[in-house]
Amino acid sequence: MRKFILLICLITNSLFLFAQVDSTHFNFVKSIYEEALVNGQSYTYLTTLCNDIGPRLSGSPQAAEAVNYTASLMTNLGFEVLKRDVEVPHWVRGDIEYGYFEKEKNIKTKMRVTALGGSVKTDGLLTSNVVEVQNFGDLARLGKENIKDKIVFFNRPMNPIHLSTFTAYGGGVDQRWAGATEAAKYGAKGVLVRSLTLRLDTLPHTGSMGYDDGLEKIPAAAISTVDAEALHAALTANPELSVSFQLSCETLPDTPSNNVIGQLKGKEYPTKYIAVGGHLDSWDLGTGAHDDGAGCVQSIEALRILKSLGYTPKHTIRAVMFMNEENGLRGAKKYAERAQTIPEQHVMAVETDAGGSAPLGFRIDGTQKQVTYVQGFIPYFEPYGVYWFKEGGSGADVGQLKNGDVLLAGLSPNSQRYFDYHHAASDVIEAVNPRELELGAAALAAFIYLIDQTIDQQ
Amino acid sequence: MRKFILLICLITNSLFLFAQVDSTHFNFVKSIYEEALVNGQSYTYLTTLCNDIGPRLSGSPQAAEAVNYTASLMTNLGFEVLKRDVEVPHWVRGDIEYGYFEKEKNIKTKMRVTALGGSVKTDGLLTSNVVEVQNFGDLARLGKENIKDKIVFFNRPMNPIHLSTFTAYGGGVDQRWAGATEAAKYGAKGVLVRSLTLRLDTLPHTGSMGYDDGLEKIPAAAISTVDAEALHAALTANPELSVSFQLSCETLPDTPSNNVIGQLKGKEYPTKYIAVGGHLDSWDLGTGAHDDGAGCVQSIEALRILKSLGYTPKHTIRAVMFMNEENGLRGAKKYAERAQTIPEQHVMAVETDAGGSAPLGFRIDGTQKQVTYVQGFIPYFEPYGVYWFKEGGSGADVGQLKNGDVLLAGLSPNSQRYFDYHHAASDVIEAVNPRELELGAAALAAFIYLIDQTIDQQ
Repeated sequence: MRKFILLICLITNSLFLFAQVDSTHFNFVKSIYEEALVNGQSYTYLTTLCNDIGPRLSGSPQAAEAVNYTASLMTNLGFEVLKRDVEVPHWVRGDIEYGYFEKEKNIKTKMRVTALGGSVKTDGLLTSNVVEVQNFGDLARLGKENIKDKIVFFNRPMNPIHLSTFTAYGGGVDQRWAGATEAAKYGAKGVLVRSLTLRLDTLPHTGSMGYDDGLEKIPAAAISTVDAEALHAALTANPELSVSFQLSCETLPDTPSNNVIGQLKGKEYPTKYIAVGGHLDSWDLGTGAHDDGAGCVQSIEALRILKSLGYTPKHTIRAVMFMNEENGLRGAKKYAERAQTIPEQHVMAVETDAGGSAPLGFRIDGTQKQVTYVQGFIPYFEPYGVYWFKEGGSGADVGQLKNGDVLLAGLSPNSQRYFDYHHAASDVIEAVNPRELELGAAALAAFIYLIDQTIDQQ
Repeated sequence: MRKFILLICLITNSLFLFAQVDSTHFNFVKSIYEEALVNGQSYTYLTTLCNDIGPRLSGSPQAAEAVNYTASLMTNLGFEVLKRDVEVPHWVRGDIEYGYFEKEKNIKTKMRVTALGGSVKTDGLLTSNVVEVQNFGDLARLGKENIKDKIVFFNRPMNPIHLSTFTAYGGGVDQRWAGATEAAKYGAKGVLVRSLTLRLDTLPHTGSMGYDDGLEKIPAAAISTVDAEALHAALTANPELSVSFQLSCETLPDTPSNNVIGQLKGKEYPTKYIAVGGHLDSWDLGTGAHDDGAGCVQSIEALRILKSLGYTPKHTIRAVMFMNEENGLRGAKKYAERAQTIPEQHVMAVETDAGGSAPLGFRIDGTQKQVTYVQGFIPYFEPYGVYWFKEGGSGADVGQLKNGDVLLAGLSPNSQRYFDYHHAASDVIEAVNPRELELGAAALAAFIYLIDQTIDQQ
């Protein structure tokens, strides 16, 4: 194996890295990218998942169909396929959801409304006055006397100042997750939440919410950002206006489901695992193209690419389709539990659940030594515009495996467009660019390859 | 001015760079990005340009309207505005363009056809047998005996193996530009060219083509990639099938038009110029959102950002709306001619004509010293995902200024989606993401700022 040495100095947390670039690895990564760009299959798989199967909310028939589709796809690709049982929550939206405000009696302005996942239904049409707030502090300041029997309207926009839209999302998601619980503490009858997107558009964005056991469960819905602005303007003109909305959603009994694993057996370390995964379930308004059909098909495609190039891995490499990331994480918890009890020793797990846009790098969750080790991969990725290797969270699913030992990572695509589609009706195949999707699969395949080749030497 | 020093080592053509990071500059770049992300105006301007004005082909009333719009916009923003006369070609598509092939007599399969810019019209309906070729070498091999009186069908796809879609485009564009001329040499009656896009879709993509003076001018049209595949399959089954198409396009007399310049006067070097520009004309099928409405509004916005932050430039900073990039480059040639004769000394000119997607870096066209100087900016851009600073072409418009002295550059956004929209009906405002567009304006403002502050010290 001829080696050429490049001296790479990179500023990373004031650390200088000196990495050896191995020409065999460099060339193999090149062949991975060429396979992905010329013969990539991710987009074909994703089209089936989105258009033939559709939205895949946990417990739905479509989620079950997606289990069968990915299992038989991976079987046909020659992977060893394992289906692992997991009971999942089964929340359904039902047929009715609508809302409006009345500037004056019987002058109705329609709002685009959608139930938050996990919400209880309304008891018929819920009509009440509205209290608009920015945050939970406002609730405390207003107190029961101003909130009791009213609908609380959380209207704090995502902050556009952050370059990463995930940071902006992180700063707003408390309203959606805990808004109903916090408002119930002050006697509110229901909650409306401004959709978590940076766009001004007419699409309501759903997402999970939770209840606290000791409190009344009040219905919670998202409204589009355009409607949030309209409601805000109307409330400014008339604070006494009334809002009405109706939801027919309900939680059914838990349902049997599956994680799906496809694997290529390792030659040197067959009982040590390298995992790449996304989640098979999706919200029900779109067809889960970016979130997270993209991650599922990229995980499968990463293994297909390696196999098609005749690569025999040292470790057993797994593509994992986690079930129920959106509203429960049951699949990931079950997977991690088994990994710990059997045990199935994972040396690395990488998640792809940040959309199918052009990949920019990897988040790394591990020891300083592990972070430094992964940053040594940068020269292999530099020709492909994948340059961003920084410490940070990995992902909700593979994060369950965290034990101080396993190296965790997450693919970081360009995040600018992600919340345009996130949990909304716009998250469909047309929102995904084929080449950007395939480039994500290539980045994952290259990452897995480099880990497989070098992690035992670090 | 407190300075902190970061030692930056970057592999760039085996060159190590040691850059000083100035904290004042670092913080000013941060404020540029914050202004762009929170108060960015590019998308608002672009919406007007695309939706209120529309497509802006050179010589059209809409191009004239765009001249007036950008001139009054920049006047309202407090820039000094200059309109510079330039005569431009005036080609019009006309109302009729359609085409079909006949697998058998009277079994017509419709093709999505569009005239290439500059093409002559057909004499009524042009019907003939077809010769499918991949390149000009095929024409030579087939010779007159196989080509005379036929329609030549150029069907070489853009090569997906290239990471940069511009490289793939560069490898295919000869068919569009010179296909008619080359086919005419062998007596062809017309030319159909596979659309230059990496997508399989039903949109024909237009673009400029040229004729050689001594040769017969034969009509030339693009067909969508889906139709190119269909025609290829039909020809494989029946090489004798006939194709028909009709075009009503024509070239009218040259028309008076304008470059539009908005400038902020420099305090130290008022007669030395830093220019940022895009082109105001566009093809007529879409509304020129990515190509190059994006570049025009980003150029204006870059100056607006600097002005809004209270910045007084050392050099005179110009936003230039070049006219007629698409089919003649007359505006850029006129601009460069005047810069040379007056003279107007340009120290730097940067072009933004690669779409409104997320910016990844800058191409640099200059001496090795100039390239190294610009690469010293990387630490200022690193927090914003703008990392790619490489030697390469700048752009067709600012490229006219090349004189061995002026530093030229081009903004490089993510190119993966660009040719989905390029010169097609899909190049509309909906294809542009507001934040990605604003980030491009921020990158340009930061680039101009750093040049303005430091170029006299290099």
